[in-house]
Amino acid sequence: MLEFERLTGERPGNGRARLGKIKTPRGTIDTPIFMPVGTVGSVKGISKEDLDHCGAQIILGNTYHLYLRPGTEVIEPMGGLHKFTAWDRPMLTDSGGFQFFSLAKLARFTDEGVKFQSHIDGSRHFFSPEKAVQIQMTLGSDIMMSLDWCMGHPATQDQTRQALEKTTAWAKRGFDFWQAAGAKNNLFGIVQGGMVKALRHRSAQEITAIDFPGFAIGGLSVGEPTDLMYEMADHTLPLLPQDKPRYIMGVGTPENLVTLAGMGCDMFDCVMPSRNARNGKLFTSTGAVNISNARYKTDGRPIDEACSCYTCRNYTRAYLRHLYKSRELLSYRLNTIHNLYYYLDLMAKIRHAIHKGRFEAFKHDFFSQRT
Amino acid sequence: MLEFERLTGERPGNGRARLGKIKTPRGTIDTPIFMPVGTVGSVKGISKEDLDHCGAQIILGNTYHLYLRPGTEVIEPMGGLHKFTAWDRPMLTDSGGFQFFSLAKLARFTDEGVKFQSHIDGSRHFFSPEKAVQIQMTLGSDIMMSLDWCMGHPATQDQTRQALEKTTAWAKRGFDFWQAAGAKNNLFGIVQGGMVKALRHRSAQEITAIDFPGFAIGGLSVGEPTDLMYEMADHTLPLLPQDKPRYIMGVGTPENLVTLAGMGCDMFDCVMPSRNARNGKLFTSTGAVNISNARYKTDGRPIDEACSCYTCRNYTRAYLRHLYKSRELLSYRLNTIHNLYYYLDLMAKIRHAIHKGRFEAFKHDFFSQRT
Repeated sequence: MLEFERLTGERPGNGRARLGKIKTPRGTIDTPIFMPVGTVGSVKGISKEDLDHCGAQIILGNTYHLYLRPGTEVIEPMGGLHKFTAWDRPMLTDSGGFQFFSLAKLARFTDEGVKFQSHIDGSRHFFSPEKAVQIQMTLGSDIMMSLDWCMGHPATQDQTRQALEKTTAWAKRGFDFWQAAGAKNNLFGIVQGGMVKALRHRSAQEITAIDFPGFAIGGLSVGEPTDLMYEMADHTLPLLPQDKPRYIMGVGTPENLVTLAGMGCDMFDCVMPSRNARNGKLFTSTGAVNISNARYKTDGRPIDEACSCYTCRNYTRAYLRHLYKSRELLSYRLNTIHNLYYYLDLMAKIRHAIHKGRFEAFKHDFFSQRT
Repeated sequence: MLEFERLTGERPGNGRARLGKIKTPRGTIDTPIFMPVGTVGSVKGISKEDLDHCGAQIILGNTYHLYLRPGTEVIEPMGGLHKFTAWDRPMLTDSGGFQFFSLAKLARFTDEGVKFQSHIDGSRHFFSPEKAVQIQMTLGSDIMMSLDWCMGHPATQDQTRQALEKTTAWAKRGFDFWQAAGAKNNLFGIVQGGMVKALRHRSAQEITAIDFPGFAIGGLSVGEPTDLMYEMADHTLPLLPQDKPRYIMGVGTPENLVTLAGMGCDMFDCVMPSRNARNGKLFTSTGAVNISNARYKTDGRPIDEACSCYTCRNYTRAYLRHLYKSRELLSYRLNTIHNLYYYLDLMAKIRHAIHKGRFEAFKHDFFSQRT
């Protein structure tokens, strides 16, 4: 079972930012942490050694995707997701809730669970909160997520309340199933409540009343303005227990990570660094660059002279631009290594600043480099 | 300048297979050798470290592709192809002749050279034999190829003779240009002559009359039956000087390499291992496998239990099948590493067998494992 050790509480120089360690049998995770997304059992474009190089301590897998392909009928006999993918450190799996909202065809939510059709072949499936936990137990993930009902933005207050209520009921059922199963995998609860503070408050109260080993805030970064996302996170994070990990799902930009770590969030995941990499958008200490830009045609410098990643140590902007323009496979790998290194290095810098009690100063410097 | 050292001549146990070393300022190449193809300055799907792991000693770049994109106007100011791509060992570039035959739009051959349109944007260009050498000098390749006229199969005897005559005339002009430039890059001549022994004979005589540091056989593997390709190679190879490297362009399968090394060929290149990798076709010591096959769904074995490549040491057929079916980028890299490792390991085994004076026995064993 997971153990969460808080190394710093709130200190003057850190604002509400906090440092911690999540200890699991497969390894310890330093928080605040960013989790690269390995949708179908592979972080797109890179290998486990590349993840090591980037400093990844935990990666995320998507239950919806893995359930559909290759399916538990493959992953179970292969010894679980870790053995199947040859990644032997911690892995978190989501519950499918976000994909039912974003990807699946004709998802229908009932009290019992979610009926949906595969986005791959249209085949029909059903997830109950118990089944979502069962599948994740079969995958063998270190941190499992409760089945939730995620709303988009905008949504009516009624829709949002309905989704919240279902999320609470499902969280209880998933929790009971998990407890009865006596599984060693951890299960986190998810707070919903859309963009309505009162509903976020109610959801946080209901979900944290269940003794999950960690809590997530879901339903953010679903199309709302950044300020509204910050407002909701700022409102909700203090409602979560101090002594358990807090995870904001599906967020976000480097600026989001710094801001939300400053509000006391411990865990993040997002496809942005890897997806942007495949679209030639690369993060640097002074902002993002588009590697296809003609100005890099004969630019002999690395993407970011302040970066120590494999890509920056070996290749010029000119070559990276050429690879990208030529749609060479190496382009996607080199760009992804750079972007994930950037994200994970940023988290290491955040942790270092908190450790030194100077997170607020770090945050100030971070934003002034970008303007 | 290149130096070729023959380590074994014809010996009873080796048939006509020969062992050698091509010494260049950027490194020594053990022959017989296979050269992975890095079309536009990157061997598709893998990095230079992956090439090291596979045992690559020399890679090939395509002048036609590099000339069009990124162009010498990028590669020249970036310090040449080696510096641009961060590959610091030997590189061979072809002359464009094969691409004019296979890829370019509306290629028109005149006495002066080849007019063609880019397959990328339809822009109009012209290569003379001098310009083909000039571009390769600008790229800075270690071994350059003369501009040749490559015919498909079938072709009439008249067409074949015309292409041969043009190839000889262009070889002389390219050679003179290269000599006058005093370039340190090496330049190889190319024998043409289609599927007509008398024309192969004539071309070999004309081309070997020019003092190139090495010779290639072009115009094979252009659609003819394998036996006819072997017949032409078998006829032509003995017409090339014993004391210079012999290169058969664009060939071939593992079976082709073993057979042609047995006829005394020293150098090979082909897109087959990397292209097949991207199509899920993987080479093994007992033949090729198609990784998408349902029989590998829960197969916990490596692709080839006799293989020591990174892919085989780390991943199961089940995972590789899943990655391939999911079109994950990692699939292309892992498959390419395996196939190139297989090819380069095969060449190392061929060299070892020749060194031990038992190539004929090796060849017999190689073919009996496949039937």
